[in-house]
Amino acid sequence: MKDLKIIALVCCLMFPFLLKAQDFYSVEQRKSWLGKAEMNKPQLVEQEKKPIGLVKLVADQNAFQGWKAVPSGTVESLYGQSFKKQSGVVVDFGEHLTGYYTFTIRASRNFPDAPLRFKLTFGEVPAELATPFDPYPGGLSRAWLQDETVTVIDLPATVTIPRRVAFRYLKMELLGSSNGFDFKITDMKFKAQSSVSNAPAALAAATSPLIAKIDAVGLSTLKECMQTVYEDGPKRDRRLWIGDLYLESIANTYSFKNHQLTKRCLYILAGLAQKDGFLHASTFETPDLHAQEGQAFLFEYSLLYNAALKEYLLATGDKETALDLWPVAKKQLENISRHLDAKGLFNPGGAGQQGWWLFVDWRDGLDKQASLQGIMIFAMKETLALARQLGKENEVAELPALISKMTKAARTSLYDKNTGLFTSGPDKQISLASQSWMVLGEVANKAEAQRAMKAIAVHKTAVRPGTPYLTHYYVAALIKSGMAKEAKDLMETYWGGMVNKGADTFWEAYDPNNDKLSPYNFFPINSYCHAWSCTPVYFIRKYPEIFQK
Amino acid sequence: MKDLKIIALVCCLMFPFLLKAQDFYSVEQRKSWLGKAEMNKPQLVEQEKKPIGLVKLVADQNAFQGWKAVPSGTVESLYGQSFKKQSGVVVDFGEHLTGYYTFTIRASRNFPDAPLRFKLTFGEVPAELATPFDPYPGGLSRAWLQDETVTVIDLPATVTIPRRVAFRYLKMELLGSSNGFDFKITDMKFKAQSSVSNAPAALAAATSPLIAKIDAVGLSTLKECMQTVYEDGPKRDRRLWIGDLYLESIANTYSFKNHQLTKRCLYILAGLAQKDGFLHASTFETPDLHAQEGQAFLFEYSLLYNAALKEYLLATGDKETALDLWPVAKKQLENISRHLDAKGLFNPGGAGQQGWWLFVDWRDGLDKQASLQGIMIFAMKETLALARQLGKENEVAELPALISKMTKAARTSLYDKNTGLFTSGPDKQISLASQSWMVLGEVANKAEAQRAMKAIAVHKTAVRPGTPYLTHYYVAALIKSGMAKEAKDLMETYWGGMVNKGADTFWEAYDPNNDKLSPYNFFPINSYCHAWSCTPVYFIRKYPEIFQK
Repeated sequence: MKDLKIIALVCCLMFPFLLKAQDFYSVEQRKSWLGKAEMNKPQLVEQEKKPIGLVKLVADQNAFQGWKAVPSGTVESLYGQSFKKQSGVVVDFGEHLTGYYTFTIRASRNFPDAPLRFKLTFGEVPAELATPFDPYPGGLSRAWLQDETVTVIDLPATVTIPRRVAFRYLKMELLGSSNGFDFKITDMKFKAQSSVSNAPAALAAATSPLIAKIDAVGLSTLKECMQTVYEDGPKRDRRLWIGDLYLESIANTYSFKNHQLTKRCLYILAGLAQKDGFLHASTFETPDLHAQEGQAFLFEYSLLYNAALKEYLLATGDKETALDLWPVAKKQLENISRHLDAKGLFNPGGAGQQGWWLFVDWRDGLDKQASLQGIMIFAMKETLALARQLGKENEVAELPALISKMTKAARTSLYDKNTGLFTSGPDKQISLASQSWMVLGEVANKAEAQRAMKAIAVHKTAVRPGTPYLTHYYVAALIKSGMAKEAKDLMETYWGGMVNKGADTFWEAYDPNNDKLSPYNFFPINSYCHAWSCTPVYFIRKYPEIFQK
Repeated sequence: MKDLKIIALVCCLMFPFLLKAQDFYSVEQRKSWLGKAEMNKPQLVEQEKKPIGLVKLVADQNAFQGWKAVPSGTVESLYGQSFKKQSGVVVDFGEHLTGYYTFTIRASRNFPDAPLRFKLTFGEVPAELATPFDPYPGGLSRAWLQDETVTVIDLPATVTIPRRVAFRYLKMELLGSSNGFDFKITDMKFKAQSSVSNAPAALAAATSPLIAKIDAVGLSTLKECMQTVYEDGPKRDRRLWIGDLYLESIANTYSFKNHQLTKRCLYILAGLAQKDGFLHASTFETPDLHAQEGQAFLFEYSLLYNAALKEYLLATGDKETALDLWPVAKKQLENISRHLDAKGLFNPGGAGQQGWWLFVDWRDGLDKQASLQGIMIFAMKETLALARQLGKENEVAELPALISKMTKAARTSLYDKNTGLFTSGPDKQISLASQSWMVLGEVANKAEAQRAMKAIAVHKTAVRPGTPYLTHYYVAALIKSGMAKEAKDLMETYWGGMVNKGADTFWEAYDPNNDKLSPYNFFPINSYCHAWSCTPVYFIRKYPEIFQK
């Protein structure tokens, strides 16, 4: 009897832990999802690329980040003479590439009597090669910077840099050699990879050159990020994030139409969800598929998964997949009601207490309350639309009332009727983020939306976007407000601004007034080919009447 | 007819070139020699080694080169905690090793969200790890310095540094990591290699501790340099030089007795000889066997080949090999008479006009005339002894007269009867090199030799040796002069000096009064495990009555 009591006591004490350890999804469920992710893994398409010429980096106040790359010679001129006299040469591959670099070294006078030492620096933009990396002031790992040191013991040698790099320009410096012999570099080549193998439909012939160029740079950006998952950036972080997936997948729908990759990513995220059923914001493929455990839960990204799933269903009609993943989508909404005050207003402090991450944009000082309120309403509406497609409305029957309550709360507490602008937080901060998400969540009616979007455009102290990510939602909000011209103007000034500054692919962070803006305190560590910046492809091709007229 | 005339004319014009291009040895001959070299290539013996502990580098005026390594913890303590807090740690493998380093990295908190960047610096001596390499002031390739930068993309990772390194101490620095996760290092190991697999005979029990230690350090030096050839140094230059071969092979004769390696090296040098029949001073094994073409002809080394061949025959009785290589030895002597004045005195200027390299020692300002005179006479005597063993005296019938003439010339022009010292060059320079080689060439009789060796020992401005290489010949000259005690004293102060300064292996350059002496203007680039310094093994074991009494 005594033993039994002890066992009962232990069971009671352990019950909360047992509960906590329970998985919201069954082992079989996860296995099935990850199996489907694996089945839809694309074969990478490899292409051998050669450099197109040499460039010189020239300081120029008018150039992006103060540096421009000026053609300075042919690759043959590099191959034709001793490399010793050419240390520091910058080679231009003519386009942004992702993959593996190989070059060959041959003795040209005497036999080598000592090893050689090279430093190879791969850069997506010219200033990346003109800015010393050390001492490194950045907030992310120094190892993301793509400078590799190589010792070559024997010649001839064909050297392949083991790490995958993403770049257009390559600086090659000689750090060690011997007077006893001379040598030349030859046969530089690059094994470029992407899972994209097809070209999208051509734009209308009447498309303006700038819009056509923006579209082309967007396509390059998207293609470079489409590897065996939708990566956020092939230089950094090289992983699947929900926020990037959503934007990449809608751009893909209007361009490469590689829906299999979208399907794979939706399944990876589901299969690797947290034990409590909510989604991790990002996942890795190597050394094997896993989520970024330990990272703060990124609330809004978990909600945007639903929008991505809805868009996937619309693009493909693949109800089987959407039904398979519906339980995941439904689960993501559960967090919403837990962090509202009595009126139905989002309480960022409550989320903060849980250690959540609210992102919205890379911009110091941005208040995120209104944006989150809008994102939540937007996500609920997207999920409702998804439920309707799947005949699952009964499972989310509470949504219409919650949407209504939250919309009312936003209109009551976050809308300033006098200025026509939405505010956020205790200090009633005015930002583009808040206006955009209130419009996309349809908190404002069309007239109010237009008023807000017009007012914010000329507002002098409003917090403005730091990334193309938020700017995407800004454009979407302009279109939703019926402000087609403003949307096109924004596209031309913002993404067109990057194009005019020489972008081969669109950048992770871009402030037209601050070329060196970096979320990480060091602009060379920024990603200059970033998935969330590719969406002109989506807008230009979805709304030809706006962007191609 | 006209065509025939043109052909004749062309043939006549080309004749000198054809002559020049003719090979002194036949293709078949070289092929046969290189075939024998290949047949005698040893299998390397691999051993897995683990570090014995951690050390701290401490500045200390009394330590060799100003730095000592002080034990500071266990390897387990390194493995047990985050590596982030231990960047810069120095790991001690407890002995000099040559081969390949491997370590493993595992995440210890969260999943990695960024690559890692390490710098690994391998050092043979403590100061090598405490002295910044850049900006590099040295005269040899910076790439010899053993610092490698590694980017690690995924964890867990097992990293093997691709280049072969030679070291005892390893500094591991973390150059890049992320705040998002933590990690530990584990399973550091080293695949050590050498072609030596046996232990030599034990020394007599009565051997003094210092002599025993000198012998042990000499054996380590020799073993580390015995790879698939006798290397000069496993860190640098990692190749076969005739001068090192000679000293290594006689040390090997009295220790490991791996005569197969000597045979291989003699054949490599013969098979790769210059077209004119004279020997290249050094050869490489990778990417395939080849000589160091383009390097200045090193006159005295070509002569010392004969001494090495004679010693090989004496040690093994392998007449077949000695006869096979006899034509090479005979050929090397041909240069001697070409560079003598009428009296029979060596004319360094004449050699210089041909672009030859006269080495003798790494010591700026050393006049080499007398040394070369001595080396030439010594080599002729060694060759004569070889010829006698092989019944080939008739082929070198001119040698006795030439030896006589050159000896007389030296006694007339290079010997100062008043001081009892030999002089060298127009400025009558006094050096240890000159005395040693005049003694070894038997230009001085025993009484004169003793007088010279005693006088030079106390001479205040004499040029003294900069390397153990020349010091070897100094010891040999003392023994030849019957000055056993002085030979032992020199061994104990010079090689014993290195031992007392903490040498695990003997150094390429050593001046008791200048720890930072470097032939290359930067002491960390020196080799601290250098073949030519291993010869205490030879002396201690060949002359036990001198060194073990």
